[in-house]
Amino acid sequence: MVHLTPNPSFSLTIRCQIPNHTGMLASITQAITTTGGNISHIDLVEYDRHIIVRDITIDAFSADHAETIATAVKALEAITVLSVTDRTFEMHQGGKISIQCKQALTHPTDLAMAYTPGVGRVCSAIAAAPERVYELTIKSNIVAVVTDGSAVLGLGNLGPEAALPVMEGKAMLFKEFGGVDAFPICLATQNVEEIVTAVKQLAPVFGGINLEDIGAPRCFEIEARLQQELNIPVFHDDQHGTAVVSLAALYNSLKLVKKTLEQVRIVINGAGAAGLAITQLLKHAGATEIILCDSKGILSRDRPDLSAKKQQFSCDESGTLADALKNADVFLGVSAPGVLTPPMVKAMATNPIVFAMANPIPEIQPELVVNDVAVMATGRSDYPNQINNVLAFPGIFRGALDCRATGMTVNMYIGAAMAIAALVDSDDLGPEHIIPSAFDHRVAPAVAAAVRKAAQQDGVAGI
Amino acid sequence: MVHLTPNPSFSLTIRCQIPNHTGMLASITQAITTTGGNISHIDLVEYDRHIIVRDITIDAFSADHAETIATAVKALEAITVLSVTDRTFEMHQGGKISIQCKQALTHPTDLAMAYTPGVGRVCSAIAAAPERVYELTIKSNIVAVVTDGSAVLGLGNLGPEAALPVMEGKAMLFKEFGGVDAFPICLATQNVEEIVTAVKQLAPVFGGINLEDIGAPRCFEIEARLQQELNIPVFHDDQHGTAVVSLAALYNSLKLVKKTLEQVRIVINGAGAAGLAITQLLKHAGATEIILCDSKGILSRDRPDLSAKKQQFSCDESGTLADALKNADVFLGVSAPGVLTPPMVKAMATNPIVFAMANPIPEIQPELVVNDVAVMATGRSDYPNQINNVLAFPGIFRGALDCRATGMTVNMYIGAAMAIAALVDSDDLGPEHIIPSAFDHRVAPAVAAAVRKAAQQDGVAGI
Repeated sequence: MVHLTPNPSFSLTIRCQIPNHTGMLASITQAITTTGGNISHIDLVEYDRHIIVRDITIDAFSADHAETIATAVKALEAITVLSVTDRTFEMHQGGKISIQCKQALTHPTDLAMAYTPGVGRVCSAIAAAPERVYELTIKSNIVAVVTDGSAVLGLGNLGPEAALPVMEGKAMLFKEFGGVDAFPICLATQNVEEIVTAVKQLAPVFGGINLEDIGAPRCFEIEARLQQELNIPVFHDDQHGTAVVSLAALYNSLKLVKKTLEQVRIVINGAGAAGLAITQLLKHAGATEIILCDSKGILSRDRPDLSAKKQQFSCDESGTLADALKNADVFLGVSAPGVLTPPMVKAMATNPIVFAMANPIPEIQPELVVNDVAVMATGRSDYPNQINNVLAFPGIFRGALDCRATGMTVNMYIGAAMAIAALVDSDDLGPEHIIPSAFDHRVAPAVAAAVRKAAQQDGVAGI
Repeated sequence: MVHLTPNPSFSLTIRCQIPNHTGMLASITQAITTTGGNISHIDLVEYDRHIIVRDITIDAFSADHAETIATAVKALEAITVLSVTDRTFEMHQGGKISIQCKQALTHPTDLAMAYTPGVGRVCSAIAAAPERVYELTIKSNIVAVVTDGSAVLGLGNLGPEAALPVMEGKAMLFKEFGGVDAFPICLATQNVEEIVTAVKQLAPVFGGINLEDIGAPRCFEIEARLQQELNIPVFHDDQHGTAVVSLAALYNSLKLVKKTLEQVRIVINGAGAAGLAITQLLKHAGATEIILCDSKGILSRDRPDLSAKKQQFSCDESGTLADALKNADVFLGVSAPGVLTPPMVKAMATNPIVFAMANPIPEIQPELVVNDVAVMATGRSDYPNQINNVLAFPGIFRGALDCRATGMTVNMYIGAAMAIAALVDSDDLGPEHIIPSAFDHRVAPAVAAAVRKAAQQDGVAGI
């Protein structure tokens, strides 16, 4: 069984009433520790001479584990458990975003300007000069986060309603990290033509479209069609966000091992939306030897089972993932838990670079090959070098909106990746620090500036 | 020419640099007064021994008038005009609403719960029990404000982009008066079938649909189709919002003149979306004699030019609006400026009730018949008795969302009207006070309670 670290996504808060004696809290922490729970904080709620009420917040590694912990505390004599709260569900009550008025409406004067009759003049001004919609409405700063619910995280086709919490979370990240307003659009259709039509009909309000959790291969056609038929930027984060951050991390990893993108043999495992986008971006950035694998091994030119899309990425080699990895310099995984084994890593070239980005469980547990790799990165926040899309999409849209880009280009993505990589300066660069933190506030402005510059050079900047 | 009162929708702020002598401000206020401008406030920006900089805010009655005022101030010797700002355009810069995160994202723990991996458990919970979308997402408190831009205010078919400022304003009113989150959807199609399809595809995110500024007769079919095909409430504010507030005002006006809805002869002028909806609602509420007129006069059964929809509302009488008004007790206008004349009002029954609701210029200027009517109401905030939809829609959706209504019913509308009317108690009721103020904070909760009750009685409440 893969070992999992307790983490806040499974955290719970237990409210206990405890007799006000010394040693009582110790008995609780002891019980929690015995079950493997990780106490993150203990708060005092109230107390008198006889009792103390405390909130004890504990990270677990699964929902079952959380229940085990709660049961252990409930079993303690003299302790009364008043409530057990799942913190993740608690923070989702009623949703995670809201609409805010930028101005107060406290007087009839405010109404007369923000609404009728004053607003009529603003409408007429836009009708007379359509480009003024960017100046006089929310369009200049708002992105639609569009899904059909067909590929929600790693969970599969859950449908539009069940996808909404992810889209709300994405909207939070857009706002918090890029200052970009974003609104979730969860479509009740999974038909390519209908999705394209619906998004085109919605587009007047939005300055950009972020596609999210739409399954391959439909996501490719939807993105291409929308980019062609709309004059606002369209971005599929599962593809390009992942590709941009992977490239940024790879730039810095290669500096550490003193190799170049042009020289290295790169194996990408996972030929879904992310894998294909990474392959494409790395090629544009100068990579020459990329072997793409899916669950059946190398995408070999002679495999009869490849889709048209996969055929574009096929190569002359054939064999298993293990075959592909022999003497490879770089492994990039966007695939499944545990598919990379220590012997495969040991068969790689000297100073191998391994990005095991499957979420939440990586292709290999980093602990298993700690002495065998030059650089290890994952998608997880509890290991060093988290490959996190939040480093890319807020700044990419910030830059695209600020220059009213009419589309996204590969050079905008490469510019974004170089900007992210450049934020780790040579003094700080190390095997456990190849990429800035998601909470580094320099990231989005740096990415935005690079994206604006590339958009201007590519002739897609509107202003 | 119809006389217009200066009002804040045409207000401007003139920033002037004035020599620091006594009498200088008086010369400015004198110049403004001479042009007919109405000074609302004067702020001090900065000063020293020699000069004072002031912001002077002035209501005008048109854009031309605002320019005349600015020109008059610029012409003054010794005064330097530093800037002239149109306040309505100023408040629209960058739009009027934004997306807000309900929780801060300041630590990796927050990300792990609001986004991956924690959010995955929330998605799975909704996939397993679809009704939990109301508990765990924004759906329980959010309404789409949907338009196709075909009938923007009284301005006509301006298209979806130019309609956006109205929809943003509506979203502000929803939030401010009902605590309801609302988001603008401006569709790039005016085809009934395409609008119905687009709204159905968007619906998973929303707890209700507010249709806005969609031209008749398409609005009727769109509303009916959506109400039938969706299991969330659908409301066309231009129809039912206006009807509810008109009925509320009429209830209280009739109390004043001691007549009943069943007795009175009511003439409704304007057979668009609002006129037809008012007619329908008044009939449901008990009115027996309603004569509906359009620009060609009474909707007479023998008129060959009536649409199918108008035919439903035709009657045995025929003639002009003036003919209809002879001995009428009530005039309700949702039509055009100036179409009601003093002789027509004088030909009405004793104690006539006149609601001249055309916006921004009413069917008759109230000053012209001040001694000839028992009650006068308009759509304007600068006269008593403003018939303002904001009294209805925030509370109606508040109530519908709170009980997870699956649709809207006539009884919900009648309940809302009675609740609004009941907030003016008999001591306060008078010819200039038949309806509460838009800023009366009791309104939305009272309307919401009545709507919930009616929804429960009609069996459309989900909880």
